[in-house]
This record gives sequence, C-alpha cells and structure tokens, in this order.
Amino acid sequence: MAQRVGTYTLKFTERPSIIGHAAVVGKTEGEGPLREEFDRIFEDDTLGQKSFEKAESALQMEAVTLALQKAKKTPQEIHYILGGDLLNQCIGTSFALRDLGIPFLGLYGACSTMALSLGLAGILTDSKAADFVVAETSSHFCSAERQFRLPLEYGGQRTPTAQRTATAAGASVLSAVHVPNAPSLEAVTFGSIQDLGIKDANNMGAAMAPAAAATIANFLKDTNTTPADYDLILTGDLGKVGTELLKALLLKDHHIDIKNKHKDCGLLLYDCEAQDVHAGGSGCGCAASVFNSYIMQKLLKGELSRVLLVATGALMSPTSSLQGESIPGIAHAVLISKPDVIE
Amino acid sequence: MAQRVGTYTLKFTERPSIIGHAAVVGKTEGEGPLREEFDRIFEDDTLGQKSFEKAESALQMEAVTLALQKAKKTPQEIHYILGGDLLNQCIGTSFALRDLGIPFLGLYGACSTMALSLGLAGILTDSKAADFVVAETSSHFCSAERQFRLPLEYGGQRTPTAQRTATAAGASVLSAVHVPNAPSLEAVTFGSIQDLGIKDANNMGAAMAPAAAATIANFLKDTNTTPADYDLILTGDLGKVGTELLKALLLKDHHIDIKNKHKDCGLLLYDCEAQDVHAGGSGCGCAASVFNSYIMQKLLKGELSRVLLVATGALMSPTSSLQGESIPGIAHAVLISKPDVIE
Repeated sequence: MAQRVGTYTLKFTERPSIIGHAAVVGKTEGEGPLREEFDRIFEDDTLGQKSFEKAESALQMEAVTLALQKAKKTPQEIHYILGGDLLNQCIGTSFALRDLGIPFLGLYGACSTMALSLGLAGILTDSKAADFVVAETSSHFCSAERQFRLPLEYGGQRTPTAQRTATAAGASVLSAVHVPNAPSLEAVTFGSIQDLGIKDANNMGAAMAPAAAATIANFLKDTNTTPADYDLILTGDLGKVGTELLKALLLKDHHIDIKNKHKDCGLLLYDCEAQDVHAGGSGCGCAASVFNSYIMQKLLKGELSRVLLVATGALMSPTSSLQGESIPGIAHAVLISKPDVIE
Repeated sequence: MAQRVGTYTLKFTERPSIIGHAAVVGKTEGEGPLREEFDRIFEDDTLGQKSFEKAESALQMEAVTLALQKAKKTPQEIHYILGGDLLNQCIGTSFALRDLGIPFLGLYGACSTMALSLGLAGILTDSKAADFVVAETSSHFCSAERQFRLPLEYGGQRTPTAQRTATAAGASVLSAVHVPNAPSLEAVTFGSIQDLGIKDANNMGAAMAPAAAATIANFLKDTNTTPADYDLILTGDLGKVGTELLKALLLKDHHIDIKNKHKDCGLLLYDCEAQDVHAGGSGCGCAASVFNSYIMQKLLKGELSRVLLVATGALMSPTSSLQGESIPGIAHAVLISKPDVIE
C-alpha cells in the first residue's frame, strides 16, 4: 500500500515490478544513437497504414503487444491498460487498444504520459487493486506535425529551439507481486501545473522546464535525498533549451545541482547535429521509448540502480496558442530501481 | 484497500465519502427540468470570457471552487485533482486548474470522464494514497460545436439522433476517511473499448450503448446482483436512441431488464421536446452536473440509497471520422450509496 512521504510523494511499499517492456520507433529514431536498443524499427513511417494517425495506433499496438509477449502475459490477464497520446481526443490510443478487450483508463498528460501512466499503474498494483497493469504511450512525427504545426507537405522551417516529435511508442507491464531481479517502482511524485508565461509554441523545453524543476525539488525534499542518491535523473523531452533552464532553475531556486546526474531522453534519442533535429526530441513516445529500451536494459544489467524518470508535458493546444495563451507545463516523477542492488 | 470482485469489479473496503459536490450550468441547462438543483446558472454562456474555450475553463473552475467550499477544504488540503474534457488536448481542464497548485492527473475518457475520475479518485482514497481528491469534468456547447462539428455561426441543422453537448461542469470532493451521512463509493467497474461499427457521428448514443451494456452486465455479474438491488442505474448521456439500444442489448445479450431502474442524465437535463435538443444531452458535463446536483441531493435526503453511475464516452475525433473510422465507445461504472441506509 502506497505511503505518503512529505507533501507530494508516495512510496510503494510492495514495490510493483516491471516484468515486461518494449519500445518501437520510426526510421529517424532508428538511425540515432540508441538504434541497437529498440525492439523494432519501422523503416516506413506509415507502417503500411493509410494515414499517419492510423500509423501511430499501429506503432502503439506493436509496443503493447511486444511488452505483453516479453512479460509472458495475455491481454486477458491484464486488469487495466493506462495510456494516452498527443492527438486530438487521444485517437492514437483508443484506436490502438480498441480490440484488446482490456479495461482502459484513458490519460492526457501530453509528453508526461509515460510517467503519469507508470505512476498510476504503480498505485493500482501496489494497492492490489490490480495484479497486472500496462502503462504505455506513443507519438508520431507526422501526425503531430499535422496536429500541432503544419502539414508536412508545407515544408515549414523549424526554429533552433524547436524539437522533433519522436515517432516512437513504449510500454511497460507491471506486476503487483514483486519479482526479484526485475526493476521495480519505488516512489511517485505527481506534479501540479506550472506556467511562467512562455508563449512560444516552438520552445516547449522552456515551457516545461519550470514544471520539471518543481517536481524534482518536491521529490528530493519529500524523500530527504540529494541527486547523489540516484544514478540518473532522466527528464522526458526538455531538449537542449529546457535542459539548460532546468539546471539553472534548480540551482537558483532550490540550490540543487543535478549536473552530473541528469540526462534528457530528447537528447539521448537523436544525434541533434548529425540528424538535424534542432533542440532534440519530444513527444510522449520520446520518454516512453528511451525508458522502455536503453534505460530498462541498463537497469536489468545492473549498470543503473536507481533512476528518477521525470516526464514533462506541455498542456496547450493550437487553439489556446492562437488565442494568445501561455503554455502550462506539468511533470510527473517515478523512481525506478533494481531492487536486489539496493535492498 | 480495494478488493477485486469477479473479473472486472473493485469493491472499496474503506468506502471513501463524497464530502463536497457542485454543479454549474449554462442558460439552456438552467431552463431545463433540473433548474432548481444547480449551484449556479450562468445566463451568459461566455461567462464574460473572450472565447468559448476560456468560458469552459471558467465554468469548470467555478464547479471545483464551489465543491471545495462545500467540503470546507482549501486547494492545499487536496492531494490530487483528476479531470479532463472534450476539447483538443483537454485545454478546458488544464487552463481551469492552472493556478490551483494541486497535483493534477489528466484524464481522457470523453463523456465517461466523471465516472473515470470518480473511480480513480476512489482507488486513490480507498488505498490511502491520498486523503482528499477532487474528481471533476466539464463540457460547453459552443466550444464542442466548434471542435467536433461546425462553428455556431454556420447555423447547421441537427439530425433527430443528434444530442446537445451540455454547457455544464461538475465536481466531487472525496475523503479517504469515511464520513457518516455522506454518500460514499462502494465499487467501480472500469470498462474496455467496445465498437460495433457505428460510423454516424450524429448518433453517439448508438455508438456508446454497447459499452454501457457491457459494463453494466459485467458489474452485475461480478457482484452477483440484479437491477432490483439498486435504486437507480444512471447512464451518462445515451439520450433517447442510446437508451433504447441499451435496454434492448441488455435484454437480448444478457437477459437483464433495467426498464424500471434506468434513467439517463442526457434525458434528465433537458425537456427534449420543449427545448428542441433532439435526442437529449451529452458531453462530459452532462453526467457530471446531473450527478453532482440532483442525484447527490437525492442521496443526501435519503430518497435514493444506491445509485450505479455509468458514464459513457465516444472515443473518436473529427479526424478519425473523416478517415472513415467507426466510433469506439467506453463506459465506466461507479456505485455510490448512502451508507447509513444500507449498513
């Protein structure tokens, strides 16, 4: 049963385990530094579907299917599946999961969805409300461009602060029964909305950095720990600009230095210079695919023991931006650890 | 701690209580049969805001504020707020809650959101992961028309099967500590996606009825009960068409007759003939406002003892409909009871 620690943090006393994980990506992501880590790379970003939206659903379905296979679970054994995506009305998710027959809890956390779904899946399993839960999400460069910016055919120029929405999906299967040697969930800190007035929809990193700073500071305060207690503080998709701002905000407002402990999934997923992705990767699938491949593998191999995954989301829409609104940010943090190392 | 009952249902052993509730509506809803039940009726559907989207956020904020006041709680005392809405990227919710400072779990369940948020809030409080949680949602006729159909200025005709998106918001405040005389959560059944191939976006009732039938049948089977064990089986917004289909599906596929026990929020909210709303009301705010006013008052007065709230959602978007897709439906059921009556 989850125990409240400090003001914002929940510790999982039963330590639900991640017994399956999968990450699938598109062509560009498959040419990046993590190319060896993914379960599957689709050379054709349409995945043979008639629209980019349907391609995103197929991508997500593939990640869920592979994660279930690796967990040796059938859909019938899964009590709940938790997911969402960036598309209007989250159709990437609802059409992906339509035929699974698993009770579905739809989420909207923009690019924070992997941490949001993992954290809630942790509560469901830790409290024994469920035996097995899938947490998952996706994004697709082409469906996101059409949704949030301009159709690809327009050939719009991108600003240096812009990030590339990852064509990627990731899924984790959680077990309420603690499994030795499987990475497990140790704690979660859900964030509140932060908005410092950033209005530039081509600079999501800046809009989301304050939320990441607030959630990391709350987590460290609640648990009475410092960055030295973790192997890695892994943000979702702050990119180059957001990463610099996060470090500056944590130092200035909280006297916390994460310099040697921090990495960002958006900067791990691509070689920004060589792949011309400007400030890095973004999208729900960015954190989901990096966590459910590279990071999970490192946890399983013992190369990492304690990882604080802090996925951040920008809670705007094209409509709110056109109406002159600023961009509210949110960040949720989940602490994942390889239990036999720290117990 | 929630206990699994049957295949799909969770029973709340701690019986978290609804210690505050509020419902606020627009002009048309304020002229309907429930006009005396609402906390506030806004004669001006813009609520003095510059856009319908901002008006929806203001409406939602008003419901949350009033529910907190009635629960005698400050935002600082609330551990989590759970909500979502119909707008792209759920901006109705994120902009409503931006300044509250409450950790926010964003949901997307379309018109099922009130039951989804209540059910999850039940798990959070019942498991003691949180002391106090707000579950809430909203919809707005004018922002939804622009989003899903046509701008109001176009003056489009509506088909007889079409429903009117309610301009309404509702919020419930849950307490982990059981409060005598307050209605409390007894059980939840989260649904899986059902899709029988309905493609007519002007007939949401037909698209959602199979999901309601499946969830109600699962709940009754899991709990080994019949409709006679409840005072009311309350669907969210099936309207005239969906209600008839639900009754027919339950009879045909499950031999369950809910005739004398069933009401639909979409048919309670309006006088369909006199108010020219065709097949009834819809939208997240429909179930949210009817439950958090009329139904909660009847529970508090002892005129109802056990109500199964079954809110249904249509998980499509205008894009998926344009791409020829059918409309996936979902339904979540929450059993609310006035404990001193049944204990």
